[in-house]
This record gives sequence, structure tokens and C-alpha cells, in this order.
Amino acid sequence: MLPISIDTRAGMPAYRQICNQVMALVDEGRLRPGDRLPSTRVLGPDLGLHRSTVLRAYEELRALGYLESRPGSYSTIRRRSRHPTIRSPTVPVRSAAVIDWQAVAVGGIGELESPAHPAGEKSDAVDFERLSADPELAPDEAVRRCVKSVLLRGRGAALDYSDAAGWPPLRELLADRMASHGAASVVDEIVVTAGAQHALDLILRFLTQRGDRVIVEAPTYGLFHELLRLHGLTAVEVPMRDVGMDLDHLERVLRDGAPGLRPRLLYTMPSFHNPTGITTDQNHRERLLLLCEHHRIPVVEDGFEEEMKYTGKGVLPVKSMDSRGLVLYVGTFSKVVFPGLRVGWIAAPREAVASLTDIQRVSSYAGNTLAQATAARFCAGGEFEKYLRRVHRIYRKRMRALLEGLDREMPEGVVWTRPRGGYMVWLTLPPGLGEDEMAVRLAEAGVKVSFGRRYFGETPARGHIRLSIACVNEAEIRTGCRRLGAALAAATRPG
Amino acid sequence: MLPISIDTRAGMPAYRQICNQVMALVDEGRLRPGDRLPSTRVLGPDLGLHRSTVLRAYEELRALGYLESRPGSYSTIRRRSRHPTIRSPTVPVRSAAVIDWQAVAVGGIGELESPAHPAGEKSDAVDFERLSADPELAPDEAVRRCVKSVLLRGRGAALDYSDAAGWPPLRELLADRMASHGAASVVDEIVVTAGAQHALDLILRFLTQRGDRVIVEAPTYGLFHELLRLHGLTAVEVPMRDVGMDLDHLERVLRDGAPGLRPRLLYTMPSFHNPTGITTDQNHRERLLLLCEHHRIPVVEDGFEEEMKYTGKGVLPVKSMDSRGLVLYVGTFSKVVFPGLRVGWIAAPREAVASLTDIQRVSSYAGNTLAQATAARFCAGGEFEKYLRRVHRIYRKRMRALLEGLDREMPEGVVWTRPRGGYMVWLTLPPGLGEDEMAVRLAEAGVKVSFGRRYFGETPARGHIRLSIACVNEAEIRTGCRRLGAALAAATRPG
Repeated sequence: MLPISIDTRAGMPAYRQICNQVMALVDEGRLRPGDRLPSTRVLGPDLGLHRSTVLRAYEELRALGYLESRPGSYSTIRRRSRHPTIRSPTVPVRSAAVIDWQAVAVGGIGELESPAHPAGEKSDAVDFERLSADPELAPDEAVRRCVKSVLLRGRGAALDYSDAAGWPPLRELLADRMASHGAASVVDEIVVTAGAQHALDLILRFLTQRGDRVIVEAPTYGLFHELLRLHGLTAVEVPMRDVGMDLDHLERVLRDGAPGLRPRLLYTMPSFHNPTGITTDQNHRERLLLLCEHHRIPVVEDGFEEEMKYTGKGVLPVKSMDSRGLVLYVGTFSKVVFPGLRVGWIAAPREAVASLTDIQRVSSYAGNTLAQATAARFCAGGEFEKYLRRVHRIYRKRMRALLEGLDREMPEGVVWTRPRGGYMVWLTLPPGLGEDEMAVRLAEAGVKVSFGRRYFGETPARGHIRLSIACVNEAEIRTGCRRLGAALAAATRPG
Repeated sequence: MLPISIDTRAGMPAYRQICNQVMALVDEGRLRPGDRLPSTRVLGPDLGLHRSTVLRAYEELRALGYLESRPGSYSTIRRRSRHPTIRSPTVPVRSAAVIDWQAVAVGGIGELESPAHPAGEKSDAVDFERLSADPELAPDEAVRRCVKSVLLRGRGAALDYSDAAGWPPLRELLADRMASHGAASVVDEIVVTAGAQHALDLILRFLTQRGDRVIVEAPTYGLFHELLRLHGLTAVEVPMRDVGMDLDHLERVLRDGAPGLRPRLLYTMPSFHNPTGITTDQNHRERLLLLCEHHRIPVVEDGFEEEMKYTGKGVLPVKSMDSRGLVLYVGTFSKVVFPGLRVGWIAAPREAVASLTDIQRVSSYAGNTLAQATAARFCAGGEFEKYLRRVHRIYRKRMRALLEGLDREMPEGVVWTRPRGGYMVWLTLPPGLGEDEMAVRLAEAGVKVSFGRRYFGETPARGHIRLSIACVNEAEIRTGCRRLGAALAAATRPG
């Protein structure tokens, strides 16, 4: 007879108690391979349990590899290669690891910057760091209506796989959207991605291999540097001037590069550049494009804030002049509205789109249909335009508040950009004032910012601060400027 | 005075007519850089238009790079490096391409199999090809309720970025879900991905580099072969037997491999294997794990149909025995429910999950919050279990209909597997009967299937057909078996 007893007052189900005790007996060697267990008909009454409870325990033990049985025969303890460990969901038990995951990783990306603080983090610090659509302005109600309408139509289509190139109606709408920025595309020149970062990843997979060189602005989008590291690529940095990338410098890079070191592509953000907020003018864009045409270097134009032109004259994307099919334009909704839906796109020559779509299909099969259909509904129904008008009014005021605040509060020696749209202003610290020192001071002062270092490959000569007004209101901006001004004044005060 | 005239009966807005005519004058050389345009105050009345219409035209021309103006001064024709081409959205004009996109692509993936036919394609052929949750069974109403509930809570959180590792409540639910399969995990052993394909892509990025070798079953999931090609990896094929991967063969591969040719990982589908439908038993799983432990080869266990155990005893995942942290388990909702939401996951040792999360963050920033929150709601509210019970009943009948149909209709010489769950049955054709011939015959007969070749690296000796019952009802299955049987009989009939 099995030395098993059931505690009916225990919180644990009886079948689980049987399992645990049988496994313990096996693990202790008191039950051995080939040993026969009592039939369920016998053990049930013995333990004061229904037979089905014992049956359930035996099934579980079989599934765990402790028992074997043939139909109509007794269950016996199974000869097992080793004992599987049953881990509780909260306290994992683990034997010595056989693999050192840090050592085996070859696709590693080295040291990572700490990520932007996650949504919902609470703090009384003024958040000039976060760069994404303000959740306070999120058009939840309109999106809910769009989701509902999308799910009500077409039996399950919004929950089913879509084309790897994207939900066809969304591709059409994005082609129109590109037209509104002077860069009209046809549907098969558009591939929908899971956001702009994913779009950039697809492009690097398409055009580069480990060891290649890629031209970037210095400074540039920090996570693009990390993406280059993930791909094993080298950044060739071209300094930003007040008017955009230094094109004389670019020309030298393109002209003097040894054939084997030829850059595979150029990455640029002509409008509301991250992190500086600079928008280049028409002349700059034309010369940039001509240079790249001449040297046959694909241009990746990141238009992540294209829709955030809320002051002054608009300048059309480089893509609008791309009569020779050189430009891969990256767009996204995430910096304007519903970042959590992860909808971005690439507008590019048809052949490039076909390859990018193949890579997307093989690496993630297809995009999120519900999100893409919702975004399409949101655009087609006019909700997007309505929302844009609303946030443009808000950000125009926020940007004014920031620039006025800086004019009022900044001490001598600090200079900054004066963007005409987007979310970002770029401060250059006085010579000798380092970012590390400012990091300590600003944490104490209650201001969150991004420091300049993460936007460069090579460490820059001067310290910088990027301020984002994406998720702060005007009152917070004024408070933030005051705190920032005081902290900078204290740091630059002589003696 | 400008030679411009406005046709008020034309469909085109007046401002657009002005733009087009000015651009034409510039392009023809009749207006030259530095030429001054009439003020809007003058040109408006001249053309019989309101001044604001002319203003709008001038703004557009400025944006297009044709005009320049300083505040308070005249507008003049701008010196332009080149003429931007305005392309209509439907008829793109393109000069000679300067880049051959096929030639520059280095991340290419070679010849691709034609993708599975897209959702919604209509045909009276019986579709034994499609392998994904049946849209006819999609729980739209329940999902709609989940989306609504998710959007109604928490100001915009479901539309905002989530953690790169996934929506925290979903990670917890998935950890519990893994426990229900005997492979309990804690939250930081789970990373949510955009489906299983994306999970596999992240794992290859984590563990391999171009030129590495990866052990796979032969046959195996066709798109995994394509993924290996995308990563520049070599498949080491280990043949499938009736009981699963040939472990003696595997042992030889592991033992005899030269050090430089050491495989980086082993990819396996122990349950309802794609394409064969085979489920391995407990013994097989233990020996497989022991072999890999001994040789320190990470095991990627693809549990894509784990939830589709609808007959007989369940066998627990290899992951459930993984006391030494060797197994990266890939799960997904897509083969059971809402594939369009793109929600999958990896359950793996904490350190591996941390690296995979970093790679996900750098390559796509974060997953789809709305989809993940909806999936979490769907599980937490009991909808998933309810849905599973329903589809299990349905698929049990479908599988029975298929196996009975094959028993009834198949001619001599055709053999097939008898899966105990999942969607797939694997037919082996009689010697000498090729897939190309059958492709022609089955197209004529009105049966869509997947042919075996795409599941192998090396061309196999015999022809194979994969039948999937994912998206066909019992009546269609019976019709399909009849057609299939007739076509095979005709092909194998002597003479």
C-alpha cells in the first residue's frame, strides 16, 4: 500500500497532493521504475476519495513522465532519463545553468542607454524628456469608435492576417497622405511597418551588412545609433550646423571615401530634426539630394514629425523632389497619435518596397491588422485632420511657452535652437559645463531632460540638453524653465 | 504682366492653376531666377480672384522651391539646383533611376516561395493549404468587448507605448498559461513579441551570426528556412521519423561536428509538428533535452499549436523539464485565435529574456499595446478558455472527418500521419509520383494544398503533401478528400 495521506483541510486539491507525494516517493527512491501503483478503483476508497480524483492524479503524473500505463493495465513507475522539475509559478527552482546566455549572445548590442521612462511613471519632476504623442491628448473616444466600426465590418477580417505590405486601404490612404506633403506615391510604393523604428530596422536589413558604413547627422536620433550597433554598422558622422547637416563636409566624405568604405546609405531628418529641432530649407534639401544622386547613395529620410508643422511655412520632404527614386521615406503615426498602435510606413520605389515587404514577411509574417485598419478608419473618417488641428493649436502654445521661458530664464552662455514645429529644442551648454554635473543638478531641481551624449557616436566637445514639450503643458513648461534656469545659473556662476 | 489665365469652369482649383502655370513658365525659361512676381494685391484683381487665392498659390510655389520672398517684400523666382517633379498620385513620373535596388540589396533573401494566399480570396477550391485560426470562428464579439473595456480604462494607456518586454498584465497571464502546460515561468522570463515568426527572428538575432549552423527537423516549418536564409544561416537537417526527430542521427551530428561548425541552436516542434502533425512522446522529449544539455546547445521549442490538444493525453512541453535553463519556448495566439493581433511570446531564462527584450526595443521599440492589452483581457476574462473549448469540439470533428476521408478515398501506396491534435496531416506520395505533376492535377481538381518541398532544405526523395484543416469545415473536408483521392488515383493508375 502506498504511504500517501490526504489532508482535506489543506488548500491544495487532493489530486495535486497525490501527485506531489508520488513524485516525492520517486525522487527519494522509495518508488522505483517498474513498481506498480494501486488501481484507481482501490486507491480511491483507500484515501476516501472518488476514483476520478485518483484518475486525474495519475493522468497528471503520466503527463509529467512519472507514470506509464497501457490501456486496461496497471500504471507503473516509469524509467526516466531524469526527473523533470516542477516549478511553482512564483518560485522557480533551477539547477546549474548549462548555458551562459551573455556569452552565447552574438547579436548583442553592447551597453544600452537606459530607456525612456515608461508610460505612467509618476513624479513631480517636469518631464522634458519624453518624446511621443501626449497620452493626455489621446483621442480615445474617436479611436474606440474606429475600432468598433472596423470590427463590425467584414467577418473577422480585422482579426485575421493582412498582407505583409500592410492593410490595403491604409496603404492607399498613406499614398494620399504622402501626396499632401508633395511626395505622392502609388500604393505599391508604400509598405506599412510596426512603427518608424521597425521601418528603419527593415531598411538596414535591406541595404546593409555587418561592417558597412552609414552616414548620419551628428547629433542624430539616439536609438538609431543603437540600431546601427545591433546591425554591426559604423556611423560616419557629419556635423549639424544651424541650417542642417554640413553639406561641404558631406561632400568631402562622399568624394574622399575609399571604394571599399563607400557608405551604404545616408540617414537624415530634414524636418524638426531629433534632437536639435532644426528644419532645413529648400536649398539645403536640393543640394543634399543632388549630392546623393551624384554618388548614388540611398537617402533614408525620417519624417517622424512631418505632421507637426504648426508654425510658419511648410517645407516639403526631400522625397517630394525624388524624381530618380533615391529616397526611402519613413513615416509614423507614433509621434503624433496612438504610439501604442505601432503604425509606421516606408514610401519608396516599387522595387525597394517589394524587397522590404519580403523581409517583413519572413521576419514577422505580417503587421497588426486591427491597428492598421483602425488607423485607416481614423484617417478616412477625418478624425486625423481634426485631431491634428487640435494638437497643432496646443503645441504652438507649448513651443511659444518654452521659447519665452528660455529667453526669460537662461543665463548667459547657454544657446538654443528656435524650431518652427515639432517637439524639441536643443540647448548647448557653456564651454566647461559638463552633462554629468548638469544631470546631478537637474535631478535635484526636478527636471527630466535628455542629455546630448546619447545622440552622438563620438563624444562632442560641448555639453547639450534636449528639451521635449511632447508631454508637458504650458504651466509645467514655465516651471521647468524656471528650474532649469536656476540650475544652470548655479552651475555657471563664477567661483 | 504674367501670362496667366484662370479657367473658372475647370475642375482644378484656381490656386492650383496659378501654380501650374507659373511652374510651366519657369520650366520653359520664360520666368527666370530673380524675376519679380506681381504682388498678391495686384494679381488677385487682375485674375478676377480674391487676394487670398493668390497668396495660397504663392505659398505652394514657395514650398515647392519655385519662389522666394522676404517678409514685406516682393516674391521672386528662386534659383533652383534642379526642378522638383510634381508627381500625380496615380501616374508617377520618374527619371532614370540612379540606384538598382535589386543590386544594392544585401539583406536579400533570394527566391521566395509564393506566400499563402491572402485572407478573403474567393475560390471554390477546397482550401487544405491555409494554416491559421479560422476567421469563420473568430470571436469578434468577445474581442470587441475586450477592446472596449481596455480603451475605457486608464487614460490613453492602451494607445501609448508599453514596455519593450510587453504589457505587464499580459506577461503575468502568459506566465500562468505556461504553468498550465507544466512550464511555469515568472514574469521576467516572458517577453511578448509580435507573433511567433517575430519571436523566432529575435532569437536568431540573439544567438546567431551570418554563416552559423542551426539544427532543424526535416521537414520543418517552411518560413523558418526562409528566416534562416534572411539571417545567412545554414540548416543542418535531421530527418523526422514517425516518432519525431531521429535522435540517433542528432547524436551523431552533435558528436561529430567540428568545433568551428558547432550548431548555434536546435529548432524543434514537439507537438503537432509542422508539416507532419507528429507529436513526440515523453521519452523522446527527455532524450532530446539530455542530448542538447550534454552538448550545451540551446533548444528553441516552437509550441505554435500547444493549445490545440483536442484528443487523447497531453504531453507537456520540453520546456516543462528544462531545469537547467536551456529552452527558449516560443508561443503564439495566432494559430488559435486572432492572428491579426500579432501576439506571441518567448518563455526563456531571465538573462535570455533581458537580451531579447533589448533587441526588440532597439529594432521595433515596443509591441502593440492595444493588441496585447486586448489579448490579456481575453485571457483574464475567461473568453480564451471558452473559445478553446468551442474550437476543440470543432477541430476534433474536422480531424476525424479528414482521417476518415483519407481512409476512404486514398489509393494504394499513399501513406499519412494520424495526428492527435493541431491542424495538419502529412501525406507521402507513392515512389515515382512527383509534386509537380500533382500540383497540376490538384489545381484542376479544385484542391489547395502545400507541397512538401518547401519544408525541406535538401530536396527529399519522395513527394509530400501537407493538408491543413484550419479553415475548412467537415463538408469541405469530405469534398476535398474525394477530389484528392480521385486525382491521386488517376496519377497512380498504371499505364
